[in-house]
Amino acid sequence: MLTALGNSAATPESGLEGEVVGFQSVAELQAAPDAAVRGKIVFINHAMAPTQDGSGYGQFGAPRRQGPTIASRKGAVAIVVRSIGTDHHRNGHTGVQSFGEGAQPIPAAALTVPDAEQLQRILSRAGNRPVRMRITLTPRNIGTHQSGNVVAEVPGTDPSAGVIIIGGHLDSWDLGTGAIDDGAGVAITTAAAHRIMRAGRPRRTIRVVLFGAEEVGGGGGPTHFRVNNPTGNAVMVGESDFGADRVWRVEFSFAPANAALADRIAAVLAPLGIVRGNDPATAGADLGQWVRAGTAGIDLNQDGTRYFDYHHTPDDTLDKVDPVQLRQNVAAWTAVLSVLANAPERIEGITPAPPRQRP
Amino acid sequence: MLTALGNSAATPESGLEGEVVGFQSVAELQAAPDAAVRGKIVFINHAMAPTQDGSGYGQFGAPRRQGPTIASRKGAVAIVVRSIGTDHHRNGHTGVQSFGEGAQPIPAAALTVPDAEQLQRILSRAGNRPVRMRITLTPRNIGTHQSGNVVAEVPGTDPSAGVIIIGGHLDSWDLGTGAIDDGAGVAITTAAAHRIMRAGRPRRTIRVVLFGAEEVGGGGGPTHFRVNNPTGNAVMVGESDFGADRVWRVEFSFAPANAALADRIAAVLAPLGIVRGNDPATAGADLGQWVRAGTAGIDLNQDGTRYFDYHHTPDDTLDKVDPVQLRQNVAAWTAVLSVLANAPERIEGITPAPPRQRP
Repeated sequence: MLTALGNSAATPESGLEGEVVGFQSVAELQAAPDAAVRGKIVFINHAMAPTQDGSGYGQFGAPRRQGPTIASRKGAVAIVVRSIGTDHHRNGHTGVQSFGEGAQPIPAAALTVPDAEQLQRILSRAGNRPVRMRITLTPRNIGTHQSGNVVAEVPGTDPSAGVIIIGGHLDSWDLGTGAIDDGAGVAITTAAAHRIMRAGRPRRTIRVVLFGAEEVGGGGGPTHFRVNNPTGNAVMVGESDFGADRVWRVEFSFAPANAALADRIAAVLAPLGIVRGNDPATAGADLGQWVRAGTAGIDLNQDGTRYFDYHHTPDDTLDKVDPVQLRQNVAAWTAVLSVLANAPERIEGITPAPPRQRP
Repeated sequence: MLTALGNSAATPESGLEGEVVGFQSVAELQAAPDAAVRGKIVFINHAMAPTQDGSGYGQFGAPRRQGPTIASRKGAVAIVVRSIGTDHHRNGHTGVQSFGEGAQPIPAAALTVPDAEQLQRILSRAGNRPVRMRITLTPRNIGTHQSGNVVAEVPGTDPSAGVIIIGGHLDSWDLGTGAIDDGAGVAITTAAAHRIMRAGRPRRTIRVVLFGAEEVGGGGGPTHFRVNNPTGNAVMVGESDFGADRVWRVEFSFAPANAALADRIAAVLAPLGIVRGNDPATAGADLGQWVRAGTAGIDLNQDGTRYFDYHHTPDDTLDKVDPVQLRQNVAAWTAVLSVLANAPERIEGITPAPPRQRP
């Protein structure tokens, strides 16, 4: 069983059949001579395992993000990747990919993990004998249509103190219902802002933005940035977009002058079992642009251990939301907002944003 | 139920009774006036939750490491902390602490998590009414005795290429058997070196050091460093000391000139589901001194989600070792050694070692 990736071409209605050529990584595909790929269906395997911080998604997601373009450039007729997921159910994991310049769109799909493991076994046993596969994909490109951000504000008492922007995104992949990606983030940030509003007027305005288009590669986020920076006087950004499980770590992108502010936030989060991390906050897909431009940011990192069991699959449904952990998220965001919205000091980010270290 | 912490004073044989004064953090204890603490038994609570990377141990371990000294300086007659652990069993978590200069040793113990939660409930319900506790602790300081490191080498073919030092530690806390802390690390690194030895002679000598004294605050590690640096020509260090569960991440402290070497190591680890991290390696308690002095280091971070359920408790026993995950560790270390021991290039660390970023 398989599912089309974003921007995949369709196969003919009767399907597309071809010989399968398998690779264990994008690097292995990249290193292969074009002749080994031309006219074939490329398969890319990987060994993604669950991580609490979700860091496996970056590294092991390469087959989905880079595989289709490389396969197309080498003349493949289609590509199937092992789902970028950590479950063992017959549900494919879709997600966005874009064919790079000069790469002709080809059918591009994710096999479910059990099917990918089966195909790998078949290829391993076949040795030099050809293995053939027939796939049928029916995606249609219906062009660019209008979406919209939903914006709400808890007005502050001091307009000169700047605006805090938080939020999540409204769109989701078609296979599931988007309960954890990102209905949960929408609910968490809205509930936290509502609690602050109920407690009285904060010093700073809190803006909740529910972004209309994130999954297609970013639409609502960049648009909100373009319209509101720098005139909108935003001083702080943070997004909730990693499911509904508990916040386990907080990270900051604050100017050194705001070290005491970060200390106060870490102190109110510690009773919720939240540890303070050492890396700079990125503020997520919809708000990260602000941090990269020098606005202060905060990440409340959610436990991602089971996120990639459900993300972008038919299994992204409301029963995956654990109410106890959801409430811990709301408590954490409320605590953060209560400190940030009423902090007497100026809030400043890092300019330029610090690079991640490597190696 | 409770257990004595390292370097705790004993109570009288008949026990010690006193009024309990509770705090939610070390900072709260530190901020309290001495008069609120003098003559009392201090209790420090915390909210440590499991993390895959074990980062909660640093932050939430403060009550054990700093609490006894602060409580003693403020005139407390004893201190009990919520166990620095994440289980819910009636087993206390011990661990080292040292009374700072001018702090008179007092009885210092860890309550089991269920008992700490019960005490917190009692204190919360009591309001202003005094709560009294009787504790009996029987530790003895038997003075400093001799320990020893066990050192073995897989001799390399090229003495000028330098030595790779790996290992674990032999000592453990008295409550358990030390199966995961650190029998596992001893077994993993020894088995990996043995596999390399069986496969033929590597270019570089691999030295396995089983450190004789780590839990008391470092003895075998610093001694090996003092005797062997810089004359011993070590070019690479790495310790296994975080249980027996799977390696989920690799981190490097390599000079920029060794970026390609790090890439090759990350590539051989990816099929084991191991992700590449962005922070510098620290090389653990016994070998970290080398990295801080500029020697290259590698961390194979093990999954710590359940490590602090067992660590320093009577539950640290062999049944906690999952053979499948143990084998993944041996495979990872073997893969790392096979690349490092035969790498044609020079191996260099970072001088000075990079600081962790904050905030």
